[in-house]
Amino acid sequence: MLTTVQDFETAARTRLDPVHADFIAGGAGDEITVRANEEAFRRLRLLPRVLRGSAVRELDTTVLGSRTRMPVLLSPTAFHKLVDEEGEVATARAAAATGTIMIVSMASTVAVEDIAEAGRGARESGDPAPWWFQLYIQPDLEFTEVLVRRATDAGCTALVVTVDSPVRGAHGRDLRNGFLDLPAGLRCENMADPRQGGRVRPIAMSPEISWEHLGWLRRTTSLPILIKGALHPEDARLAVRHGADGLLLSNHGGRQLDTVPATVELLPEIAAAVAGRIPIVLDGGVRRGTDVVKALALGASAVGIGRPVMWALAEGGEKGVRRLLELLREELDQALALCGASGVQDLTPALVRAPRTLDGVVS
Amino acid sequence: MLTTVQDFETAARTRLDPVHADFIAGGAGDEITVRANEEAFRRLRLLPRVLRGSAVRELDTTVLGSRTRMPVLLSPTAFHKLVDEEGEVATARAAAATGTIMIVSMASTVAVEDIAEAGRGARESGDPAPWWFQLYIQPDLEFTEVLVRRATDAGCTALVVTVDSPVRGAHGRDLRNGFLDLPAGLRCENMADPRQGGRVRPIAMSPEISWEHLGWLRRTTSLPILIKGALHPEDARLAVRHGADGLLLSNHGGRQLDTVPATVELLPEIAAAVAGRIPIVLDGGVRRGTDVVKALALGASAVGIGRPVMWALAEGGEKGVRRLLELLREELDQALALCGASGVQDLTPALVRAPRTLDGVVS
Amino acid sequence: MLTTVQDFETAARTRLDPVHADFIAGGAGDEITVRANEEAFRRLRLLPRVLRGSAVRELDTTVLGSRTRMPVLLSPTAFHKLVDEEGEVATARAAAATGTIMIVSMASTVAVEDIAEAGRGARESGDPAPWWFQLYIQPDLEFTEVLVRRATDAGCTALVVTVDSPVRGAHGRDLRNGFLDLPAGLRCENMADPRQGGRVRPIAMSPEISWEHLGWLRRTTSLPILIKGALHPEDARLAVRHGADGLLLSNHGGRQLDTVPATVELLPEIAAAVAGRIPIVLDGGVRRGTDVVKALALGASAVGIGRPVMWALAEGGEKGVRRLLELLREELDQALALCGASGVQDLTPALVRAPRTLDGVVS
Amino acid sequence: MLTTVQDFETAARTRLDPVHADFIAGGAGDEITVRANEEAFRRLRLLPRVLRGSAVRELDTTVLGSRTRMPVLLSPTAFHKLVDEEGEVATARAAAATGTIMIVSMASTVAVEDIAEAGRGARESGDPAPWWFQLYIQPDLEFTEVLVRRATDAGCTALVVTVDSPVRGAHGRDLRNGFLDLPAGLRCENMADPRQGGRVRPIAMSPEISWEHLGWLRRTTSLPILIKGALHPEDARLAVRHGADGLLLSNHGGRQLDTVPATVELLPEIAAAVAGRIPIVLDGGVRRGTDVVKALALGASAVGIGRPVMWALAEGGEKGVRRLLELLREELDQALALCGASGVQDLTPALVRAPRTLDGVVS
Repeated sequence: MLTTVQDFETAARTRLDPVHADFIAGGAGDEITVRANEEAFRRLRLLPRVLRGSAVRELDTTVLGSRTRMPVLLSPTAFHKLVDEEGEVATARAAAATGTIMIVSMASTVAVEDIAEAGRGARESGDPAPWWFQLYIQPDLEFTEVLVRRATDAGCTALVVTVDSPVRGAHGRDLRNGFLDLPAGLRCENMADPRQGGRVRPIAMSPEISWEHLGWLRRTTSLPILIKGALHPEDARLAVRHGADGLLLSNHGGRQLDTVPATVELLPEIAAAVAGRIPIVLDGGVRRGTDVVKALALGASAVGIGRPVMWALAEGGEKGVRRLLELLREELDQALALCGASGVQDLTPALVRAPRTLDGVVS
Repeated sequence: MLTTVQDFETAARTRLDPVHADFIAGGAGDEITVRANEEAFRRLRLLPRVLRGSAVRELDTTVLGSRTRMPVLLSPTAFHKLVDEEGEVATARAAAATGTIMIVSMASTVAVEDIAEAGRGARESGDPAPWWFQLYIQPDLEFTEVLVRRATDAGCTALVVTVDSPVRGAHGRDLRNGFLDLPAGLRCENMADPRQGGRVRPIAMSPEISWEHLGWLRRTTSLPILIKGALHPEDARLAVRHGADGLLLSNHGGRQLDTVPATVELLPEIAAAVAGRIPIVLDGGVRRGTDVVKALALGASAVGIGRPVMWALAEGGEKGVRRLLELLREELDQALALCGASGVQDLTPALVRAPRTLDGVVS
Repeated sequence: MLTTVQDFETAARTRLDPVHADFIAGGAGDEITVRANEEAFRRLRLLPRVLRGSAVRELDTTVLGSRTRMPVLLSPTAFHKLVDEEGEVATARAAAATGTIMIVSMASTVAVEDIAEAGRGARESGDPAPWWFQLYIQPDLEFTEVLVRRATDAGCTALVVTVDSPVRGAHGRDLRNGFLDLPAGLRCENMADPRQGGRVRPIAMSPEISWEHLGWLRRTTSLPILIKGALHPEDARLAVRHGADGLLLSNHGGRQLDTVPATVELLPEIAAAVAGRIPIVLDGGVRRGTDVVKALALGASAVGIGRPVMWALAEGGEKGVRRLLELLREELDQALALCGASGVQDLTPALVRAPRTLDGVVS
Repeated sequence: MLTTVQDFETAARTRLDPVHADFIAGGAGDEITVRANEEAFRRLRLLPRVLRGSAVRELDTTVLGSRTRMPVLLSPTAFHKLVDEEGEVATARAAAATGTIMIVSMASTVAVEDIAEAGRGARESGDPAPWWFQLYIQPDLEFTEVLVRRATDAGCTALVVTVDSPVRGAHGRDLRNGFLDLPAGLRCENMADPRQGGRVRPIAMSPEISWEHLGWLRRTTSLPILIKGALHPEDARLAVRHGADGLLLSNHGGRQLDTVPATVELLPEIAAAVAGRIPIVLDGGVRRGTDVVKALALGASAVGIGRPVMWALAEGGEKGVRRLLELLREELDQALALCGASGVQDLTPALVRAPRTLDGVVS
């Protein structure tokens, strides 16, 4: 039975090629950050309010002009066709049907235009269902511009620029499994280069990329730009200064540099550094409605989920992802009710506590 | 052999339907709070006093005018007939025979009048044996008034109003076990609606309930009212302001919102917020006489036990619950003696310590 | 091979009746304090000094006028005949042969006079080998006086008054094993009452005993008196005020009140409370030469060992206890050398650290 | 597959005599410090910078005039012939081929001259490949002088004086395994005494050695001297005052005094004590490129690796050690890139965080 996000993972593991399951679950180094993300949420404590008469909870949220029916987004994840025949098309339909923002990965195995098309088809009348596009700025700026134009034309309403990948993180599981390439027949469809007759290029993760490239991108597009992967408060400030419209506070699910902190542990500092000037979306370890409440209370405008989407897709395709999103919506609604909150606006840092052992309280 | 509360749990598990054992042991979400309650007590340290000549220990306690032979109450737990044929009748007899306050659950499988009757019969001459009544305020206030009147007429000497349940907590174990309804033949006898020919209504857990409902209840009854389930110090203050006569500091045994703190971790702050204006009863994780001492030293007037009563009832019916209460009484008496205390009045925060690793003491 | 104290425990367990092994290893309640004692030592860190040219280490120590060849005493433990045919006679010979102070338990299975006699016989010429006597003050003061006189006449050079036992701690293992009495043939030989024709009395652990009894004892004997079992700094101060000559900082090996702190965690505070006016001996969890160094650095004049003596006695009788004491002496000597210390006087709190995670050091 | 240092250990264990594997892996006492070294690195968090355009990373480092192609040195480890037929000759070739400084152990099973010769042969043209010599000052100063002269003549460019060994640490594993001597045919070749016809002397670890001996050594040689094994900040200051040119902050891999802190936990204090006057090299628990980054960010100029070299040597001789060094170089390069660093100079304490649980950040 699929009553928790954990159940989706368990179910997916029975269906997935173990090598692919490892690709999804694994991370960089000793996977210390992979574990830290979930553990940090489990350690945080909620201090709910009572008797607030919150019979109706408002979950609708608008982030950078994009409306979503709950403050839970689909963070960019690569290679959906690895786990489901329809790939990102199935994911997009599920996201659209539930009115949830999908951040399309640059490394999708379906072209962004086809993902958008699928999303439009599944969108319920009157329902919001925008999608955003995740981008690694390529040293070949001309090609980067092609990508931005395609995403824009496909209706993406924001760009999410990943900045934590000057090199690709080393994933021990993939190395041991010999999983180094996509299986035959799958490719990163967005990487087709029109200047080379549609030849699919490899995604460059380049240490040359710098704040100047961000400045170039800022001049190139009028879409809102979110910076994904800045973890240092100083970099959060720099992002604001360089014209970023939002932050996606993410440690790449522990897949890039191992032993970076859990994102939710960094959130209070990042929120202080940003000081409300731009919204923060957080991903990394969100598995429960209570996790969403904690992140929002500590200053996030929304959260993203990554691996859970892959598990749900592996478990049941489009229907699986829909169920996952509905489950999270139910858990979030219940957590809000139990916190005495009628909506996001009622979630403040006073709701969250670091665990204690009574130090400083008891003599 | 039944030498510890833990032994009662072990024994009960051999007798109980595993589905029912799960219903009792389980909690909300990942059961982080369920575990936290017990762990918090285990982590706290006692710093006993010696040579105080405390040959006689006084365990009798009065809470809101109700006398009890020890400061350990039976917290409200539902569905006693699930584990014992006599159900709450057996529990009430055991409580009365040992002079202990029983808080009758609104979700009892025996009517409050019959529980009271059983209690009166078992009461030893001259012995106190009051019972209290736990209430979820129903949106149908007229029916709520019926409940209050029945409880009052049955001799309940206080009302315990649960405020942490605007919705019902999701219990993963019950969902997985498909345990969603009482077995045939059992029902919540207090929910019979006289206006509908005695039809048994479902218990409403409603997010509409607010402090205004508490004000209404305050005007409706002259019984002392305890608020059960307020965890935030601000809500403790509001409870005092709205005329509550006491607090039952409880996280519902970890069965409502997961990841809330252990109650004993919150106790010092709640005690500071309340500042002695109303008494505090604490439940959640009390398994040892030393746990009782810790809670009382940190500011509680008494503690409640929940799951242990169910295990004892499952293990040996009325006799089992009696043995459990006697065991806790012995453990408490011994713990008091070993702390150099002659009674509750000798228990102060100076007896309790957060665990240390010599931080701040050693350079 | 017996290269560590742990090896003695392992070896003893293969020889001992499991019920007796449990009696020795077990403690009160959930044995949280039993474990805490050893864990606290393992957590503490040593910060050695180097290049101090300490070629010779002086281990001889004098505590309250009693000289011992190392600052490791035999804390009082009961019932040595339970694990070895010769019982306390074997222990006394081993202690005397190695010049170590033995604290004879009031609950010894050999009379204090016979223990002393054995000790005198084994004492190497010129070697110190005093013994002390542990006492539970009996409400029958006349009989207590008999005990004190016998101990004095047998050559005991100090009295160790246990004050943490107003009642006997409940040992779950013994209850479950049904181990409630000494086996036939064994008895507490010191409890023979000459006024009743030598009938052996039970040892009374009485909550009536108070500081006034200590005052009485102070007037009754001229031997130095150590208070054993006071844990609260306030009680340490009271002990000084009531004329105690020393403290044996002990939690009874976790056998009385469960969840009291590890003794070494309390040592800095107790040392501060006593402020050098009287010496402190510490027992509880000492298993390594480094543990001895830690306790001495934090303010103890010597340490005591309890369970290890029982294990060594079970493993190899007199010879076993000798080997144990020699092992600890070697470990202590090596630890001193590695700390750059030439003796006890070089051990200061600056040698000891609470574990860190760089909090407060790294930003 | 050998994708991590851990893999080398695993592979080595399948090839090594378990007694020898224990000799390498084991440590003093309860091996608390052995474990603490690795755990401390795992607990520390990195807070990387982004978008710094660090396309090229400079790993070359100069320590005390010795150039090395990465800031990872081979710390002195004894008895390489125990695990590989060629012993230190193989290690030296691998170190030289990769341009890495090897610290030759005084207890090498190949003479320092032959190690140097092998290193020179393997050195790639133009590549740096110095070696240093580790020394226990022998009470027989004349013989110590012989050793220093041999090391100097063999081309060693620094002396590393071990000061944490006034006595030899007791290794429980070796005692239990009866591993007390080198197997027949192996000997410490540097200990041949020319004054006694080349008879091999035992290595003396003497508590007589003091700061005065260091003064003598300072006058005897013009080579830079590093002090290895001083852990107390006060001793770090004394080392500077006595003319040491550098510190090798080391706890001997947990092989001398058990329960000393992890070296990386001490680093911030030691760096503060030294205040930049002399460089610090750190060893103990370095297993990952991120560990190197952490140590350098906290103030080390380079790190040393010990056990990993033995595992790599056991696994694949010279080739194994080369692979190990290349792996660490790759991991370090990647970690630098992911931290946004172009070289050592970009690593500052602001990159490192103690783990948090949001204490002090969340209310």
